[in-house]
Amino acid sequence: QRFMAPPVSGPRELWRRRRDVRGRMELLIMETQAEVCRALAALDGGAAFAVHTWERKEGGGGISCVLQDGHVFEKAGVNVSVVFGQLSAEAVQQMKSRKTLKDKDGKVPFCAMGVSSVIHPKNPHVPTVHFNYRYFEIEEADGTKQWWFGGGTDLTPTYLNKEDAVHFHRTLKEACDKHDPKLYPKYKKWCDDYFYIKHRGERRGIGGIFFDDVDSPSKEEVFQFVQSCAKAIVPCYVPIVKKHCHDPFTPEEKLWQQLRRGRYVEFNLVYDRGTKFGLATPGSRIESILMSLPLTARWEYMHTPPENSREAEILEVLRNPKDWVH
Amino acid sequence: QRFMAPPVSGPRELWRRRRDVRGRMELLIMETQAEVCRALAALDGGAAFAVHTWERKEGGGGISCVLQDGHVFEKAGVNVSVVFGQLSAEAVQQMKSRKTLKDKDGKVPFCAMGVSSVIHPKNPHVPTVHFNYRYFEIEEADGTKQWWFGGGTDLTPTYLNKEDAVHFHRTLKEACDKHDPKLYPKYKKWCDDYFYIKHRGERRGIGGIFFDDVDSPSKEEVFQFVQSCAKAIVPCYVPIVKKHCHDPFTPEEKLWQQLRRGRYVEFNLVYDRGTKFGLATPGSRIESILMSLPLTARWEYMHTPPENSREAEILEVLRNPKDWVH
Repeated sequence: QRFMAPPVSGPRELWRRRRDVRGRMELLIMETQAEVCRALAALDGGAAFAVHTWERKEGGGGISCVLQDGHVFEKAGVNVSVVFGQLSAEAVQQMKSRKTLKDKDGKVPFCAMGVSSVIHPKNPHVPTVHFNYRYFEIEEADGTKQWWFGGGTDLTPTYLNKEDAVHFHRTLKEACDKHDPKLYPKYKKWCDDYFYIKHRGERRGIGGIFFDDVDSPSKEEVFQFVQSCAKAIVPCYVPIVKKHCHDPFTPEEKLWQQLRRGRYVEFNLVYDRGTKFGLATPGSRIESILMSLPLTARWEYMHTPPENSREAEILEVLRNPKDWVH
Repeated sequence: QRFMAPPVSGPRELWRRRRDVRGRMELLIMETQAEVCRALAALDGGAAFAVHTWERKEGGGGISCVLQDGHVFEKAGVNVSVVFGQLSAEAVQQMKSRKTLKDKDGKVPFCAMGVSSVIHPKNPHVPTVHFNYRYFEIEEADGTKQWWFGGGTDLTPTYLNKEDAVHFHRTLKEACDKHDPKLYPKYKKWCDDYFYIKHRGERRGIGGIFFDDVDSPSKEEVFQFVQSCAKAIVPCYVPIVKKHCHDPFTPEEKLWQQLRRGRYVEFNLVYDRGTKFGLATPGSRIESILMSLPLTARWEYMHTPPENSREAEILEVLRNPKDWVH
């Protein structure tokens, strides 16, 4: 069993596209899903992923893998989707943060695929991780083809552990540096800017990398870069889980985790472009989109951690992002 | 102690405006806050409201009263705000769902005041209630004054109790009927349409009344109507709390309550105009805006209640709103 379920595109279609980035990206997201699910299931020591395949009436479908209420993980979702068909130019415009279309009317053939995941552990000393790697293709009315990649991996700890933060960022930096030393600093900053809860003046977590609309230097080179990032997910995160999943914790630490989960919900429902786009798209699978929400969250009125506490320490970093690799 | 704290406008200002709707509305929202807080504190039998007054740098301020983790209530917030000053025409436009301004540029003198509240009880057999009554005044560049009222009261039960639903709607209908028999049916429908969680195909609760941009037949008559609605809050809700606050409940019933709290968060963060406007407004008090979120909430992947269960019964009503008064 190489994958969690048969790929959305059938074997003939994948064979036909075996040299295209489109076909190779579909294999990469399937492999990433299986690799991450296997690693997490092994860590959880018992609980298995529930696998759901779903089809999209208008074209394509997906595979959702969810482990809920396990030993180590409260809720871990790893989702693959491969959707295609015709999209209104307006909707395509919404998917792209910086690019513009020549023709704003009519329908555009498109293909969008990606793997995305949010992993919420039980122990407040094990951070939440999120990753998403995606690829888009559209064809404009005049036959021009556009393609681009987006993605990123970022960490949301309840408490700051500097060693873990350095390990996480360094592993991402190594994956980026193989391709271009300019990528990590650029995408690290993009991540800090993107995961910003404006009304709180806080980032969601301690960041990682984030990029969107990437279409240079070439399709092949960006694919290779995305592949390196995808291969870095397990080495970024699994050692941190192993290190802390048996750490003792107090009810107060669990409570602080629940308050931070509330902030996670705020970011995802108020700001996250993917979530907003998904909720507004007719026919999208709501359960897969909202898989990112934690099992439980908490909101207390006027909660302020005491000065010099470990709670205040992480808040300081969320308010003023740090450079972790120098 | 007639009020929870001294009104935002000082005694001289209130005396000067004692015959104006603006002054009388400020007194009404202060009285409503005090009346509701007293009734809830008496029900909770012990826990007291924490009172915070806050000032807005640009003009005005507010009074937030919160009872958290009480005997009967998990989180009950009753907030008054009276803010004024200059607002960009664009911001004014956002506050109004249907009206338009003659001049889209420049600053507009405005005054906005209201009382708003969300009350989340602990027992899953006691419903959550929300109400909000507000008044706006703006003056356009050519001296034209516009004013309008908005508001509503709506109920969000975890389990359906038909008797309670009828009592709640009938009490609202009586308050409306004193002014015009057309109001209740119109505002009942508006409420069902407004509190719609589109991506779920469900309403947030079993409704009540909701209205916005109301400026006819006359300022005095609309004020009288709003006053009747405000006076109906305690008789709508308090008997329901008294009836159920000692009902026994199972862990499964508590869990279903937590899942419904998750939906409450989804509505408030994704759709609620007031919350979105508040979060996007620089200088607004975030703690008062997000007071509406429950203390705790839960999201389970692919949760579906069994057919013919009490959980399925309430879902059916949330998907297809009912007429409760005939």
